[in-house]
Amino acid sequence: EDDDNRNPLPERLDDLEPEQIALLLESLPQDVRRHAWNQVSVEHYAEVLVAMRSEARESLLRQFDSDTLDQLTSDLDAETLIELADSLPDEIVDIALARMDDRQRGHYEQSASYAEDLLGRYVDHELLILPHNSRVRDAERLLRRQVPDYSEHVWLIDRTGRYTGAVAINQLFGAASHQPLAELYDQDLEPLNADLPLKDACDRFETAAVAALPVVTAEDGRLLGRMTQRLAFEVVHEGYEAQLMASAGLDEDEDLFAPVMRSSKRRATWLGINLLTAFLASWAIGLFEATLQQVVALAVLMPVVASMGGIAGSQTLTLMIRGLALGQITTANMIPLLKKELSVGGLNGVLWAIVVGIVASVWFESAAIGLVIGLAIVINIAAAALSGVLIPILLERLKIDPALSGSVILTTVTDVVGFVAFLGLGTLLLV
Amino acid sequence: EDDDNRNPLPERLDDLEPEQIALLLESLPQDVRRHAWNQVSVEHYAEVLVAMRSEARESLLRQFDSDTLDQLTSDLDAETLIELADSLPDEIVDIALARMDDRQRGHYEQSASYAEDLLGRYVDHELLILPHNSRVRDAERLLRRQVPDYSEHVWLIDRTGRYTGAVAINQLFGAASHQPLAELYDQDLEPLNADLPLKDACDRFETAAVAALPVVTAEDGRLLGRMTQRLAFEVVHEGYEAQLMASAGLDEDEDLFAPVMRSSKRRATWLGINLLTAFLASWAIGLFEATLQQVVALAVLMPVVASMGGIAGSQTLTLMIRGLALGQITTANMIPLLKKELSVGGLNGVLWAIVVGIVASVWFESAAIGLVIGLAIVINIAAAALSGVLIPILLERLKIDPALSGSVILTTVTDVVGFVAFLGLGTLLLV
Repeated sequence: EDDDNRNPLPERLDDLEPEQIALLLESLPQDVRRHAWNQVSVEHYAEVLVAMRSEARESLLRQFDSDTLDQLTSDLDAETLIELADSLPDEIVDIALARMDDRQRGHYEQSASYAEDLLGRYVDHELLILPHNSRVRDAERLLRRQVPDYSEHVWLIDRTGRYTGAVAINQLFGAASHQPLAELYDQDLEPLNADLPLKDACDRFETAAVAALPVVTAEDGRLLGRMTQRLAFEVVHEGYEAQLMASAGLDEDEDLFAPVMRSSKRRATWLGINLLTAFLASWAIGLFEATLQQVVALAVLMPVVASMGGIAGSQTLTLMIRGLALGQITTANMIPLLKKELSVGGLNGVLWAIVVGIVASVWFESAAIGLVIGLAIVINIAAAALSGVLIPILLERLKIDPALSGSVILTTVTDVVGFVAFLGLGTLLLV
Repeated sequence: EDDDNRNPLPERLDDLEPEQIALLLESLPQDVRRHAWNQVSVEHYAEVLVAMRSEARESLLRQFDSDTLDQLTSDLDAETLIELADSLPDEIVDIALARMDDRQRGHYEQSASYAEDLLGRYVDHELLILPHNSRVRDAERLLRRQVPDYSEHVWLIDRTGRYTGAVAINQLFGAASHQPLAELYDQDLEPLNADLPLKDACDRFETAAVAALPVVTAEDGRLLGRMTQRLAFEVVHEGYEAQLMASAGLDEDEDLFAPVMRSSKRRATWLGINLLTAFLASWAIGLFEATLQQVVALAVLMPVVASMGGIAGSQTLTLMIRGLALGQITTANMIPLLKKELSVGGLNGVLWAIVVGIVASVWFESAAIGLVIGLAIVINIAAAALSGVLIPILLERLKIDPALSGSVILTTVTDVVGFVAFLGLGTLLLV
């Protein structure tokens, strides 16, 4: 039964970084994964679980005994519990909350009040904070203690907790110890709003040349916490992975070793959607049954027409998906873009129509077949360019992710147009 | 002619950040782009060009007059010239080099000596450096000046330029001014090797909790420069974009408004490769011409079998591509993975075989047709699961990116297997 589990676990799993342990655990079949977990030391439990994708994480958590859960929940901070809460039963979350100190519990409740796509949910609380009327020596005293990673600034707040500004740590070296910090504010550092969608907050790090930015409440400008460049890095990374997975109808958290039943069920939906589009294509072919019976060469060559359209269309679609993701597609450049893609499609349509036309003519010893397939390819590649530009724009307007469903819809169009053009022209010219 | 160019340019393009200007310029048709460039102020030239994707950048550079080129090359630093060099004519690079000071020219030559995929090429030189026998007061004096972004450490070097260690800036606050810095070394900060592939260097930022790491030469440990988390962010971002584009046979630097001829030529290659695989599928169908003539229903239903296999296979393939990218696929977990994917494929194969079988039986009033398509779907989905696991592993061994060509090869397999299974069974059972 377990013969296959020859995965070369490192002598001591725990010598690895938590992120590496997480990747390794995910790569193991579920029963081996459970055994390997025993090598993780208690103080790394939370970090490793946070670094894992949620489905694999949950496969482990389901098998934890009460002792292990007890150890896990004994010392969680707010940010960790926010990450794990969705994977834990409610009663375990309650236990973890009960064991937190008041400050962490306050942070948790604050974060949990923001929706899953908002920055406020993901702030961390490892901040260097001082009252806004502090002086340089106060900052120096603060900095003598352990400072959090990515600390380039000390942040100041007023009596009500409102963020008043940031002072760059290196500015302290030139200053007199009695100088008020408020005189040293770094004017370039704009705080982020906690109500900002997480994605937009990540964009801000493309231009902000700091490793961490303060996050404030929308209502009263209170300093909630900070967002680090590292978080932006992780979010962008996850977003791309989600896009890759979505393009095949997969969930971003899909476990490599998900249970067969669960995995089959999820994938069945995508296959079902695809089946409907395939039947649509079949129906289009079915309209020309009589023609197919007379000219069987059409049945043989059908896939070539559909496939050339599909590929040409997917090239345009991919260019559009990138452009939309970068915010580069506007109503103003849509028409010139359509013109350009139609021209590219036209050129390639004509080129490959000639090539395929010649091959088909020779293969089936009929110039007419060559003409029919050539014309059908020109029509289908033009339709592909048109759909490749318009479908993603339409989906975006309908708030549907073009990376998810664009390809299915496009292929349906190029299949149906390809079959109808080819078999329709065949009916007109060959029968 | 220019009617379509209604792109709403901001009143002053130059109020935007260089990265935003770059995105905006890329989104403009080439003639409008050239005009819009006039709104970019001279001091942003280099930054905007560096932020642009290379094809769009080159479309602009080709149209620069000698004045603009002169302004561009008047004050380039080493990192900027490294980024732009491939887009500039050699003689312009030489002019820019001649106008650099000796220090920057030295940096440039050092960076240029590393290959395009190595970290050494991309280091920046905005460092806080001190001799290794310096004291706390020396560091304090250094920090009074303008410090570079992302500075959490001062780095120390010996007389030969060899990196000896890093001191966290906040450590200075607790220390006496005469204390040697060497007593305050941060032991956790491992320097990066300049010979490291850039990708691996990016991975290091997943676990290193600092915004910048020192980069040293492989031969003698000399401090070359630094790598920032921001660079890692950019490289990972570009890598994903390249993967998205490659999946449709597009170049990662493809300009949204590339000239029609150039764009057509590039895409033609991908269409040509696809055409070969489509002809392979046609050839497979051609083997059963006689059967098709007798049972035209087979021609109508063919695409359903091929398409179900293609979709099921692409799901497995996508899961594998992610696993390979994360380093999670090993010889040890390959067999359990294959078992799992075959089980998932088996379940979904049987499920959809029944559904499609019933639909086909009713449509063509023949239980035999239903049986034939049902069996063909089970066979093709099983073949898809097998190919979905094995093709990417094989490609990886051959050092071919599975994200680039995996999908084409997989679809070829599922098309050919699908057509042969369906038409072959049809020949056996229906004729």
